[in-house]
Amino acid sequence: MQPVIDLNCDAGESYGAYRIGQDDKVLPHVTSANIACGFHAGDPGVMRRTVQLCLVSHVAIGAHPGLPDLAGFGRRELRITPEEAYEMTVYQIGALQAVVRAEGGGGLRHVKPHGALYNMAAADRPLADAIVRAVCAAAPEALLYGLAGSELLLAAQAAGLPAVSEVFADRRYRADGSLVPRHQDGAVLTDPEAVLAQAVRLAAAGEAETAEGAIIGVDAGTLCIHGDHPHAAEAAVRLRQRLEQEGITIRAPQR
Amino acid sequence: MQPVIDLNCDAGESYGAYRIGQDDKVLPHVTSANIACGFHAGDPGVMRRTVQLCLVSHVAIGAHPGLPDLAGFGRRELRITPEEAYEMTVYQIGALQAVVRAEGGGGLRHVKPHGALYNMAAADRPLADAIVRAVCAAAPEALLYGLAGSELLLAAQAAGLPAVSEVFADRRYRADGSLVPRHQDGAVLTDPEAVLAQAVRLAAAGEAETAEGAIIGVDAGTLCIHGDHPHAAEAAVRLRQRLEQEGITIRAPQR
Amino acid sequence: MQPVIDLNCDAGESYGAYRIGQDDKVLPHVTSANIACGFHAGDPGVMRRTVQLCLVSHVAIGAHPGLPDLAGFGRRELRITPEEAYEMTVYQIGALQAVVRAEGGGGLRHVKPHGALYNMAAADRPLADAIVRAVCAAAPEALLYGLAGSELLLAAQAAGLPAVSEVFADRRYRADGSLVPRHQDGAVLTDPEAVLAQAVRLAAAGEAETAEGAIIGVDAGTLCIHGDHPHAAEAAVRLRQRLEQEGITIRAPQR
Amino acid sequence: MQPVIDLNCDAGESYGAYRIGQDDKVLPHVTSANIACGFHAGDPGVMRRTVQLCLVSHVAIGAHPGLPDLAGFGRRELRITPEEAYEMTVYQIGALQAVVRAEGGGGLRHVKPHGALYNMAAADRPLADAIVRAVCAAAPEALLYGLAGSELLLAAQAAGLPAVSEVFADRRYRADGSLVPRHQDGAVLTDPEAVLAQAVRLAAAGEAETAEGAIIGVDAGTLCIHGDHPHAAEAAVRLRQRLEQEGITIRAPQR
Repeated sequence: MQPVIDLNCDAGESYGAYRIGQDDKVLPHVTSANIACGFHAGDPGVMRRTVQLCLVSHVAIGAHPGLPDLAGFGRRELRITPEEAYEMTVYQIGALQAVVRAEGGGGLRHVKPHGALYNMAAADRPLADAIVRAVCAAAPEALLYGLAGSELLLAAQAAGLPAVSEVFADRRYRADGSLVPRHQDGAVLTDPEAVLAQAVRLAAAGEAETAEGAIIGVDAGTLCIHGDHPHAAEAAVRLRQRLEQEGITIRAPQR
Repeated sequence: MQPVIDLNCDAGESYGAYRIGQDDKVLPHVTSANIACGFHAGDPGVMRRTVQLCLVSHVAIGAHPGLPDLAGFGRRELRITPEEAYEMTVYQIGALQAVVRAEGGGGLRHVKPHGALYNMAAADRPLADAIVRAVCAAAPEALLYGLAGSELLLAAQAAGLPAVSEVFADRRYRADGSLVPRHQDGAVLTDPEAVLAQAVRLAAAGEAETAEGAIIGVDAGTLCIHGDHPHAAEAAVRLRQRLEQEGITIRAPQR
Repeated sequence: MQPVIDLNCDAGESYGAYRIGQDDKVLPHVTSANIACGFHAGDPGVMRRTVQLCLVSHVAIGAHPGLPDLAGFGRRELRITPEEAYEMTVYQIGALQAVVRAEGGGGLRHVKPHGALYNMAAADRPLADAIVRAVCAAAPEALLYGLAGSELLLAAQAAGLPAVSEVFADRRYRADGSLVPRHQDGAVLTDPEAVLAQAVRLAAAGEAETAEGAIIGVDAGTLCIHGDHPHAAEAAVRLRQRLEQEGITIRAPQR
Repeated sequence: MQPVIDLNCDAGESYGAYRIGQDDKVLPHVTSANIACGFHAGDPGVMRRTVQLCLVSHVAIGAHPGLPDLAGFGRRELRITPEEAYEMTVYQIGALQAVVRAEGGGGLRHVKPHGALYNMAAADRPLADAIVRAVCAAAPEALLYGLAGSELLLAAQAAGLPAVSEVFADRRYRADGSLVPRHQDGAVLTDPEAVLAQAVRLAAAGEAETAEGAIIGVDAGTLCIHGDHPHAAEAAVRLRQRLEQEGITIRAPQR
């Protein structure tokens, strides 16, 4: 069977007069967009314009709920309770659903937590369970995107919520399948060719090579594209071409 | 035909550790609740608990979208564009819809703008049109609540959106059907018996008496109950009893 | 020498239309007020009215900087860097200083971090150092209030910043001088007489009795008064009378 | 006597991960910086880094207080009371003062309201009076910058607060000395040479030419430099060179 992978990208992270990302340039080259919902980034107008871009480019629309921390862009851990995580996820999902509905789109295709919420949910099972419950309650038609091997994916599995395992082409994996933490040496692959090679290996074989040279299995359903650097669009095009050359089909996951 | 009126009350206006209103005491005595959606008041947890209270008490659940001004409780005019009004109304409607869905409720029964947004939409037709478009796009199953005789109701009528005319038992009406502005003498009826009498007259006959003694027609579909003073629940009970004694049916409007 | 203690109380925690505390009733009975500065609670108008109350009651005015989390009232840990802690403390100190100056008061008398920032600074030395640097840079004339035995007090000592050790009459102490965590049994003293007795013992002898009956030394410079429950003023009056009966002088610390 | 003018520029308008302006490139070419104080833009860290830049470049540091509307960048009118304007101006001034003090700078050199607050204060005398009172109370050593011919300058004059009249090189003036409103044709001068010529005429002679060809007097103490377009630094350099060629001294106003 031909290998298949989704390319997802964070989108709609501007806020009022503030711009982050180049959604109009990057979105045409991905298959899934995670749209910020007004807590860590995004506002009602930005959400609307981002949804319009996605509909034009036939990109699968997902919610990207985050912590209520615009000043920290949702990247700082905030010690919320699982109940609070449930409630803020439901709220943000609903806000985006209405924007999509108002623009003539259908239901959400997926939900991917943002930043510190994503990382906390990868390691904290009660928090992961709360997010899974929120998706089941507010967007039962959606898939959940989570870090490969994370508690979030285990929580989804336990609840019977279909989930998609996310991988990173530019991050080094450890022997246990987790990512080398960002602050450690060698955490990020900086050679463009190495990044492309890891993307292909992940997508085609579900494998990655560790710093020590071991080959490990990594479940790869969706590959994260970074949209916030100056050459994001060109990098996305190159990655996409390479994956297609290697016989990998690029498309959003279906439920 | 027996006269019918709805009793609506703002609800869910607490925020984090801050409490406003006594929803648990007042909601059992009204037929419609306008739930704050996180912009002028309310947060995801407050919204959830308020929806739960409404479901238990069989109160019709509506959205109460407001201006993004928590510090001013949405009571200060903010000069937004009609596009911004549209977008923030869609967003807030969606957030509440998801909370209701997650709690096992159905669709929203109505939308009533809050505070300065309500007042601006009563007088500014482009803003009124934008809010009507937002309700049609995001909650096409809902009714719109607006001030009797306002541009908001005219906008709804023009768009074919069913709307409900709101009246106030404790406010003096002018000959043209508008309210005496709050800062003028005699704007507010302070005698409890006069308030009850005006409520009955509005509900039973669709009439009010002006300060000059003239009798005017006022379309009365829903009566606003204030939930934020210490004796709100007792006042609601008394009002309800009096209306029922006078043969007036109290129930939420149907679409 | 006659024993002396300060009674401090959080104040100015209302926000816009939202009310917390009864500052007008409680402030006349304390000697130091920790005024919220707009991040976890408070707004420019609330700060001004609280400063006016303090000036009338001759209460020492201090800043109560908190995390930027109004929704969580500054009680949830937010993983900020020491640099961010430094910057937000300087900012909040300055905002309150200007309000005090505009009302004709002098400099700030003290700074006491709020909620999760207080607790994090009690245990995290780099964060404690950053807060100490902020006080030295922005309010070099002020004292720092911190939990008895905390890293915050050690950081102040290391920097040569005069600090005051805070104690709690209604919390049980452990043998090492730390507080029994709130979620454990017996953490909070609920018998009013036991609270008064612990207050006297702390203030008069610098001692507390642990759950196991051991007597430990606790440096007691200021005693925290809770202002946010219905009978806060009466409780403050009783505590104050009892301390005075026992020959303890109640006054704000001087630098 | 040689003509003198100040070149002022808004600065510190970034927020968290969001960037607006190129302060490091533009500030070296101006003589006054109006630093956002966290309400319409800016945060404690951005304020600190902007103050550091100003100190290095010997740019006069002023506060740029705005409306509490980050989503609208302080450009939307919010109907606050004069009391609220007073309080939020005092607060913002104080926050910046502490940052400057912590960085080793002296007092604020000026205060210039931002966006909608600037425009409202230009036309609304009670609001203007409130802002003047705030500057007198919180930064009595500072100058007030306001639109030439505005109520804000009249309010300062009435209160004995030294003020500086601000002019715009790229805006067309009307016969009464006011600016042609932005939405009207010809409001903005787009020809770079015409902009430079108007700058020279304003600075050297205190005159401007209206659309109808009339020459009017305009008091010109400070000229506004826009820092938020891609070629802002080059434009500032050109303007500065031209003014100096014409024998105009460029320096911050002194009190």
